[in-house]
Amino acid sequence: MLAELKGMNEECGIFGIWGHADAAQITYYGLHSLQHRGQEGTGIAVSDGKSVKLVKGEGLVTEIYTADAMKELQGGKAAIGHVRYATAGGSGYENVQPLVFHFQTGSLALAHNGNLVNAEQLKGQLEGQGSIFQTSSDTEVLAHLIRRGGTALYKERVKNALSMIKGAFAFLIMTETEMLVALDPNGMRPLSLAKLGDAYVVASETCAFDVVGAEFIRDILPGELLIIDDNGFRSEMYAQSSHQAMCMMEYVYFSRPDSNINGINVHSARKRLGKKLAEEAKIEADVVTGVPDSSISAAIGYAEAAGIPYELGLIKNRYVGRTFIQPSQSLREQGVKMKLSPVRGVVEGKRVIMVDDSIVRGTTSRRIVNMLRDAGATEVHVVISSPPIKNPCFYGIDTSTREELIASDKSIEDIRQIIGADTLTFLSAKGMVEAIGREDGSETGGHCLACFTGKYPTEIYPKQHKEEHEESDALTAKN
Amino acid sequence: MLAELKGMNEECGIFGIWGHADAAQITYYGLHSLQHRGQEGTGIAVSDGKSVKLVKGEGLVTEIYTADAMKELQGGKAAIGHVRYATAGGSGYENVQPLVFHFQTGSLALAHNGNLVNAEQLKGQLEGQGSIFQTSSDTEVLAHLIRRGGTALYKERVKNALSMIKGAFAFLIMTETEMLVALDPNGMRPLSLAKLGDAYVVASETCAFDVVGAEFIRDILPGELLIIDDNGFRSEMYAQSSHQAMCMMEYVYFSRPDSNINGINVHSARKRLGKKLAEEAKIEADVVTGVPDSSISAAIGYAEAAGIPYELGLIKNRYVGRTFIQPSQSLREQGVKMKLSPVRGVVEGKRVIMVDDSIVRGTTSRRIVNMLRDAGATEVHVVISSPPIKNPCFYGIDTSTREELIASDKSIEDIRQIIGADTLTFLSAKGMVEAIGREDGSETGGHCLACFTGKYPTEIYPKQHKEEHEESDALTAKN
Amino acid sequence: MLAELKGMNEECGIFGIWGHADAAQITYYGLHSLQHRGQEGTGIAVSDGKSVKLVKGEGLVTEIYTADAMKELQGGKAAIGHVRYATAGGSGYENVQPLVFHFQTGSLALAHNGNLVNAEQLKGQLEGQGSIFQTSSDTEVLAHLIRRGGTALYKERVKNALSMIKGAFAFLIMTETEMLVALDPNGMRPLSLAKLGDAYVVASETCAFDVVGAEFIRDILPGELLIIDDNGFRSEMYAQSSHQAMCMMEYVYFSRPDSNINGINVHSARKRLGKKLAEEAKIEADVVTGVPDSSISAAIGYAEAAGIPYELGLIKNRYVGRTFIQPSQSLREQGVKMKLSPVRGVVEGKRVIMVDDSIVRGTTSRRIVNMLRDAGATEVHVVISSPPIKNPCFYGIDTSTREELIASDKSIEDIRQIIGADTLTFLSAKGMVEAIGREDGSETGGHCLACFTGKYPTEIYPKQHKEEHEESDALTAKN
Amino acid sequence: MLAELKGMNEECGIFGIWGHADAAQITYYGLHSLQHRGQEGTGIAVSDGKSVKLVKGEGLVTEIYTADAMKELQGGKAAIGHVRYATAGGSGYENVQPLVFHFQTGSLALAHNGNLVNAEQLKGQLEGQGSIFQTSSDTEVLAHLIRRGGTALYKERVKNALSMIKGAFAFLIMTETEMLVALDPNGMRPLSLAKLGDAYVVASETCAFDVVGAEFIRDILPGELLIIDDNGFRSEMYAQSSHQAMCMMEYVYFSRPDSNINGINVHSARKRLGKKLAEEAKIEADVVTGVPDSSISAAIGYAEAAGIPYELGLIKNRYVGRTFIQPSQSLREQGVKMKLSPVRGVVEGKRVIMVDDSIVRGTTSRRIVNMLRDAGATEVHVVISSPPIKNPCFYGIDTSTREELIASDKSIEDIRQIIGADTLTFLSAKGMVEAIGREDGSETGGHCLACFTGKYPTEIYPKQHKEEHEESDALTAKN
Repeated sequence: MLAELKGMNEECGIFGIWGHADAAQITYYGLHSLQHRGQEGTGIAVSDGKSVKLVKGEGLVTEIYTADAMKELQGGKAAIGHVRYATAGGSGYENVQPLVFHFQTGSLALAHNGNLVNAEQLKGQLEGQGSIFQTSSDTEVLAHLIRRGGTALYKERVKNALSMIKGAFAFLIMTETEMLVALDPNGMRPLSLAKLGDAYVVASETCAFDVVGAEFIRDILPGELLIIDDNGFRSEMYAQSSHQAMCMMEYVYFSRPDSNINGINVHSARKRLGKKLAEEAKIEADVVTGVPDSSISAAIGYAEAAGIPYELGLIKNRYVGRTFIQPSQSLREQGVKMKLSPVRGVVEGKRVIMVDDSIVRGTTSRRIVNMLRDAGATEVHVVISSPPIKNPCFYGIDTSTREELIASDKSIEDIRQIIGADTLTFLSAKGMVEAIGREDGSETGGHCLACFTGKYPTEIYPKQHKEEHEESDALTAKN
Repeated sequence: MLAELKGMNEECGIFGIWGHADAAQITYYGLHSLQHRGQEGTGIAVSDGKSVKLVKGEGLVTEIYTADAMKELQGGKAAIGHVRYATAGGSGYENVQPLVFHFQTGSLALAHNGNLVNAEQLKGQLEGQGSIFQTSSDTEVLAHLIRRGGTALYKERVKNALSMIKGAFAFLIMTETEMLVALDPNGMRPLSLAKLGDAYVVASETCAFDVVGAEFIRDILPGELLIIDDNGFRSEMYAQSSHQAMCMMEYVYFSRPDSNINGINVHSARKRLGKKLAEEAKIEADVVTGVPDSSISAAIGYAEAAGIPYELGLIKNRYVGRTFIQPSQSLREQGVKMKLSPVRGVVEGKRVIMVDDSIVRGTTSRRIVNMLRDAGATEVHVVISSPPIKNPCFYGIDTSTREELIASDKSIEDIRQIIGADTLTFLSAKGMVEAIGREDGSETGGHCLACFTGKYPTEIYPKQHKEEHEESDALTAKN
Repeated sequence: MLAELKGMNEECGIFGIWGHADAAQITYYGLHSLQHRGQEGTGIAVSDGKSVKLVKGEGLVTEIYTADAMKELQGGKAAIGHVRYATAGGSGYENVQPLVFHFQTGSLALAHNGNLVNAEQLKGQLEGQGSIFQTSSDTEVLAHLIRRGGTALYKERVKNALSMIKGAFAFLIMTETEMLVALDPNGMRPLSLAKLGDAYVVASETCAFDVVGAEFIRDILPGELLIIDDNGFRSEMYAQSSHQAMCMMEYVYFSRPDSNINGINVHSARKRLGKKLAEEAKIEADVVTGVPDSSISAAIGYAEAAGIPYELGLIKNRYVGRTFIQPSQSLREQGVKMKLSPVRGVVEGKRVIMVDDSIVRGTTSRRIVNMLRDAGATEVHVVISSPPIKNPCFYGIDTSTREELIASDKSIEDIRQIIGADTLTFLSAKGMVEAIGREDGSETGGHCLACFTGKYPTEIYPKQHKEEHEESDALTAKN
Repeated sequence: MLAELKGMNEECGIFGIWGHADAAQITYYGLHSLQHRGQEGTGIAVSDGKSVKLVKGEGLVTEIYTADAMKELQGGKAAIGHVRYATAGGSGYENVQPLVFHFQTGSLALAHNGNLVNAEQLKGQLEGQGSIFQTSSDTEVLAHLIRRGGTALYKERVKNALSMIKGAFAFLIMTETEMLVALDPNGMRPLSLAKLGDAYVVASETCAFDVVGAEFIRDILPGELLIIDDNGFRSEMYAQSSHQAMCMMEYVYFSRPDSNINGINVHSARKRLGKKLAEEAKIEADVVTGVPDSSISAAIGYAEAAGIPYELGLIKNRYVGRTFIQPSQSLREQGVKMKLSPVRGVVEGKRVIMVDDSIVRGTTSRRIVNMLRDAGATEVHVVISSPPIKNPCFYGIDTSTREELIASDKSIEDIRQIIGADTLTFLSAKGMVEAIGREDGSETGGHCLACFTGKYPTEIYPKQHKEEHEESDALTAKN
């Protein structure tokens, strides 16, 4: 079932700036700081007020934007950029964003983070009316809806189009004369506004503001349409804001530790997740170690709360890239390691608590547990700073590379045996919400917990078959 | 003066294996784990007992060894490999190692980590006798010395040649029939031996053994020549071992935290350096943070000893590579950051202790201190887990990119003012030796501290002008 | 005025095959033989009956179709391919053909040779109705017209669309189930049909049939729509055929000498142009030489008719490609030559007749005349195997690189002085038509002579400003 | 036997210039005009009087010398360059010339056209004395011989070294202060001197002089050593000149038609070979055609002498390069052609005389004969403008790609049957020498005819096993 979604899921990063003489350069550094949100492809579209130019390609920010490429983008005063997540299937140059459309009357550039749940339905209707799509990206649907809007004013056509699409989305829409910024009615993806001199900057994460030296103003609101032009910015609501449902995974593993989401620092949130986990788990051990990079903060928090020394028990090789040659099965069996190495000098003869952010298929966890034991750990206790993932995500977290969710049909004790840990503990959903520390009276604290609970904040369309799972209460399994 | 040495300094990593059906593949993974020791170039030479094949190039391990390249290396049973440090000047394809020489009677492959201090003298003599050099690398001198050895037995010619070269060196020498392993008489560079099934493995750092699944046997001894062939290995001493002088910088910042050098784990050694520093510094503050990556361990140790929370106050962007476009001066002044970002959510309103491994020119330190203040730190205390570097290195640590040693002619108080810290504290040389924890009765504990103390363990040749510096006692400066 | 047309002119080559197990490979060799018709870019789209795959890129056939690329195209039974002419302006990956459009109900691939004269008008109307164009190529207009055809049958929609476009065009349209082949009502571009075993092949020139071993059946008719599918082919006329107007430049310089156009071999036609020219010119000289490559046949014909020896008086360097570094002005003045060299041993002390196919700006002719004089020619007589070009082409011959037509406002005597020839003779339009030897009672013999005469065979639209030029009668100028 | 020679044979092109501000650029254009002499690799070494810089690589002139590469070479006043022939085996970056050697006292750059017959013997001796070779090229032997020359003056050491090497050679030797030019005692390779303003130019063929605008002075003499420096040039003889033995293949197919060798224009020489062949062959036919490119001149001469029309019966595709994908056996059998196509419109129903320069293995000839018959030729008469090749070349003509000389053990009638011609006629050796038209009283006219006659002008060394062949008198076979 998850395979059906391949190539449609797009957890990405977007960045935009209006009114700066170095618009393309600033966007380059902004995208660079968002590179962790997508490594498949990237693009920058710039506008000089008269026309829109585009450079894009499949690869990293540092690969696509050569000195020559940057020269092509010079002279713009506004820009939007995009980094795209590597999905197994739906890749291809034409799907790299921003998408730019040229008309006899002007241009339209779009950058999108999120996933529409009714894209296929809308696309079918549009093709029936003679529209030709250039990409397999759901982003393009919005462009056709806007252009099909007939004789209405441009802004009204955009608002109508936004009200027709469903799902999780953060959009940047640039023409020669203005930049529109839109967030879905549930506010499922992070998107914030800042000021850089006289220019306005929008980005998926606030870390991009720090990197380019911009000053944070506020987060974009659910259902909001922001219009930025040479006169400044003004806000309109194109939809009634529903209750917010910010993706919890942004805190758990996706965002950068130096970003603030809804005003909460990600590193600190993760540290609190680790502390809460220590309170729930209560395990005796000699050292605490985290799986780099996303679990380091939680491990530090765990160690601090549990009073156990935090150590570098696992080292990540920084030089593993696209062109790394994976060891053959035979070499793996002989003990050749890839990305992670255990630090024998640290774990030998020790009872080790290994902190990770989540378990998807269990394969990686099993490999790390084995690795630690081979390096001499006498006990390996796995603690996870989020609840078991039992349900697919339809809003852009790439569950297509997170196939075969081990927790969807296995008990925690089963999983513990599969990964070979002495004990296995997941953080409770309640503990997670408390640790994030954003009180809004609701059970979710204003977050989307669908992958843990199966409660989706939006309607789900036919192709997205929904399975219900019973929640079990126990979060710990012991050997 | 340092500029004279450009291109001769070669801190690198070497890896060799004898007697394994996947010799080239194992070497690939071994070199990959040593990539931090050199990113300029890399090569692998393999022998199938009849001939020696070579693949090398300028770039990273993952860039040079394509699937096609690996196919060329298939079928060998022995291999030596090399990763080369990026020096400003003396680059070039021909200098990438291993160097391989083909004769009508067989081949000779060499890989070298270290730096010879009398290379120019020997090269001049050899050219006077009609020798033609192919490279500007000092490694080639050894090949000519061996070939000029006349009618003596091969092994004797190698021993004679080794006794003629001076400086820091770890050599791998491979022919169709055997592999020779040699370490300089002071043992200034790390080099260890392990077993992988029936095969023998040699590497600059033990982390390479863990990555390929090999079992550590022992370190190579100063002045030792190891001969490995199909009958196993045997050891001979080609020189009287002097007192050992292992480069202290290997512990402080160069080696990987999961390696053991002379039996001491690098992460743990760094943590002890941090603890010792906390004892010496005694600073009041709210958070401790380390400059990634090399100072993380010291910062954890400092925090633990001082009882102050350890936080991620600085984030390193993982995607900065060769092709990253540096921001212009104007963009830097507007606040665009490059590799490091401060974590505002962590440092704002806090008194911050910033741990770093060393200060060379001071420029980087000043930038980081500013960055932390801009992000809201109320105080910034810089603590350094090694003494001030006052003297150049002639043994391979690339002081050519470490020009203008700020501590060579400035007091600690001067440096503090330049970098703008509230206080600046260096670890004492005595504290450093104690923290490493290798007792041999000597003042240096068997290490080379020349860059701190100016006391060089070997003779220094004319071109290597030696300046004496007065040591000052005070290691701390306060605002 | 010509600059306005930049990027719209597309003299290209197309090739299609239906019903062959090696469809992509055959298309590769077919396109390779048509490479002279376009070097800017190339693409192949293949259909396996279920889906359409595309490989395309900017560059030569041998550059774009790597072994890996060909693997992607394997398994198809039908294919269409395209080579694109290098125009100064309107380049870009997205404009490389075939254009392939994917719908929820199937795919559509288009390859086009020619130029539409009402593309801008149609595009404006379609955008007004909400269509989004992906390219700046006029080829895409046809796709939108077909898709906008509402509920009519596919074939009828194609016929309607074809009747709406005006100009010169040869189209290949491939879906999963059939291949459509269409030629404009004046038959201005060459397009022929052949058989290869059980498969049908269509190509711009018959040389492609010889290269792939296919057997010529017949030429496609003006106004014809051919439908090829697994049942064979059938023909329909979508338009009343007007009098034919095959582009005369196809004979004069564009097509390959081994192709037959309308049953006439191009080499033989050129030889007859040369003979007719010799009859008209009657010049005394010692040697005849042709400007390689396109004027070799005419030169041989001239020599044969005039009884003067044919010699290689000019040599073309075969290795000049895109990456050749043009000599600076200063080096040119010192005598550095680029593509052509004179053969001193042949022309020294001789009266030389230099045969060329046309004069556009005169710059090249002047350079060659100078070159021959510098190499010792005592007289240089320039003879041109076509009349003076006085008018722009709107049908695809790239007059945008043929700017500043020297003959549009200069007399032949003026041109002679500018190029520095002893005499200059153009072939008469009447002689040209007679030499081609295709009698149809008309003045043009069924050809388009618009660039010589200003009489355009189709309506011309507003942007294509038409200038009338007086024809002068004299075709020869003497010093 | 020929396989033993693989990689040692080097028919190449060399170019040098002394005293010109654009030395590298001039060399670029010179090498470009010599590209036909070698497509495997190319290099340029420049000297600015203080140091020697080198750019080289595997590929064409237009591939290796990018704008960036040319920038590196700027500022020199002297340069030598090389284009290298593609041999099957002995390729590799390190073998690309010029070879440049750097010493503490200066540099030495070498470029070589030809082949030494005693290279292996000399190399063995030098390695025994401790020399290390960098390449498998025989060119390097000369460098070692010069450097081993002890305390003698540089010029004397060069002359001694030249007298030790045997075979065919043309050498350019550049240091910071002078350029030496040397030709073997038999003058087997072409090498000429010219003047360009105040600068001196040396090149393998005179076509290079025409391309760069230089004025021919004279040919280099057999056994001559020319010394060029800032004071002009002076000549010395390092060896007694034997009778000259210029390689006949330079005229027959290797050199460019616009070059003069020993004062004779190559195109004109080939035309005379064709005329002489027409006199000897006396065949009735309708058309004469040549195999492009090397046989075009001979075909024109044949047609003129025989009074039969010369036609383009065969077309060569200009776009076949290294990356062209050869058709599979199956596709070839279906009729897919590669480099050559027949011109059906020219040969259909005609008796065709096909002129070629030589037959090596017969495979190509058979393919072309078949091609012409398939295109409708009623008779195909093959005439060859040189005698049968019966013996290997040890002087640099790449017989390693000319393996299995069909004429070494087959009669002309056998060959005729194998290639399927109606008649097959070779030019007689006597006719060939007469046609070249250089009278020196000798039987060979001062040429090397060893491949035809087996009479080698120099001593041949052990590895170069020499087979004697009986000459048959008959040169024609008829069906």
